[in-house]
Amino acid sequence: MVRRDFIKNAGIGLLATSASSVLLCENLYANSSAEQETQREDMFKVAIAGYTFVHFDTDKMLEMMKRTGVKYLCIKNFHLPYDATKEECDAFHEKLNNCGVIGYGVGPVNNITTEQMVDDAFEYAKRANVKLIVAGAPNEDLLPYIDKKVKEYDFKFAIHNHGPGDPKYPNAKSIWDKVKDFDPRIGICLDIGHNVRTGSDLVSDLRKYHKRVFDIHIKDVTAAQSDGTEIEIGRGIIDMPAFVKALRRVKYAGACSLEHEKDMRDPLAGIAESIGYFKGVVAAI
Amino acid sequence: MVRRDFIKNAGIGLLATSASSVLLCENLYANSSAEQETQREDMFKVAIAGYTFVHFDTDKMLEMMKRTGVKYLCIKNFHLPYDATKEECDAFHEKLNNCGVIGYGVGPVNNITTEQMVDDAFEYAKRANVKLIVAGAPNEDLLPYIDKKVKEYDFKFAIHNHGPGDPKYPNAKSIWDKVKDFDPRIGICLDIGHNVRTGSDLVSDLRKYHKRVFDIHIKDVTAAQSDGTEIEIGRGIIDMPAFVKALRRVKYAGACSLEHEKDMRDPLAGIAESIGYFKGVVAAI
Repeated sequence: MVRRDFIKNAGIGLLATSASSVLLCENLYANSSAEQETQREDMFKVAIAGYTFVHFDTDKMLEMMKRTGVKYLCIKNFHLPYDATKEECDAFHEKLNNCGVIGYGVGPVNNITTEQMVDDAFEYAKRANVKLIVAGAPNEDLLPYIDKKVKEYDFKFAIHNHGPGDPKYPNAKSIWDKVKDFDPRIGICLDIGHNVRTGSDLVSDLRKYHKRVFDIHIKDVTAAQSDGTEIEIGRGIIDMPAFVKALRRVKYAGACSLEHEKDMRDPLAGIAESIGYFKGVVAAI
Repeated sequence: MVRRDFIKNAGIGLLATSASSVLLCENLYANSSAEQETQREDMFKVAIAGYTFVHFDTDKMLEMMKRTGVKYLCIKNFHLPYDATKEECDAFHEKLNNCGVIGYGVGPVNNITTEQMVDDAFEYAKRANVKLIVAGAPNEDLLPYIDKKVKEYDFKFAIHNHGPGDPKYPNAKSIWDKVKDFDPRIGICLDIGHNVRTGSDLVSDLRKYHKRVFDIHIKDVTAAQSDGTEIEIGRGIIDMPAFVKALRRVKYAGACSLEHEKDMRDPLAGIAESIGYFKGVVAAI
């Protein structure tokens, strides 16, 4: 029931299956029936950000998602190009769906600097049949135009914070301050690692800004400062139990998408450890 | 401090380093200084059972332990043969130690059917410089002789329970019933998966028998019955948060050794997810 609601919220219809996709699915999910999933009442979902698989095609990505039991994906343009047709988008979703994976949003769509690029991003999301656009570093002067577009499409537009090196959107507060007077469908993709690297208090920020947090990139970092680097969840300085408690407290209902940026050419072990740790925290609290 | 106590309890001295081992260590632990480890007051340690690496040599095992951040090992004869000389045992420990890994015990030493095999097991552990022998399915009529040996060597002898298919030692209770009147250094290596597969209550068993539990094999299983199979921790039916709470309640001071028996020719992802989940639970409770 929880998953169905999430799918509905993500605006994704179930698509017809094809023989080849079913074969891939059977291969990837051969053990599913034997694996008992924990049924929890959490509104948030464990997911993965497509950027994690920058060096891998869709089939390899799905294999790794299968191995790690992750069933929600924020779709990156490496796997579904910005110029994909509606038919290509449908086929992509079909491939995911047949493997038990739901593509719940697109992005980050980076460096949007013109109204045309805003238009393109919304049309891409529309063709991709999702209602969430994660955006990296859009020009601030485009926010009034984006405001019009979220009203027109009824999509959510989540700006990704990128840490101390990002002059526009380093942390949740910087985004909140810029978007708070616009349509409530303009908000934040809270990257917890980058947020912490600015010295911000993650739990406090989630409490303050959660109404505009539409997506979350989960990860861990070695230090709460600019030279902190991404690391397997649980090995760094982020207090994940405190964060998960805060997610429940604010009834966060979006995705917690692992964006794993260590060992990116050999990411499976780090993904597995991070997802395992996060699920262990969720199970224990 | 905690680790030092554990090393002392395991009876392992620090050994001199060699240039080649240092090189291996530097390679395997290049990121260690950047990885902040959680300092916890738990007396138990996260470890791995050598059987997990049945298809891999010591170097490959150490690479996987590095990737997953596990630093305690129960040594299996695949990696340190029963007939290893003292010098070979010392060199093996040196190789582990130089990579930050502690070999804390040996075994399971399986199917001990004669007094000579008991003698051999104790001499093997002595050469291997550990004070813990994990044993699989030793003959029951040898328990009086094993009683003499634990007194002579001051070693612990932990019998491994192997589930519904093991007529002698299916679960913790069956071992307890057989060893309770012998020297308190004869006890149990509690395999939680096999224990659960007999329908036994894990938390209750730990409370009842913890004084004789010297080692633990952690894992998860798909069902609490004989046809349950091993699966990544968190995906099965074992309530790991309840078990970790029980470990703390009884002040368990041994190792929690992952024995991962799924995908044994490609185990890294499953090890990582299982270790991550266990650590997440430990961090959250």
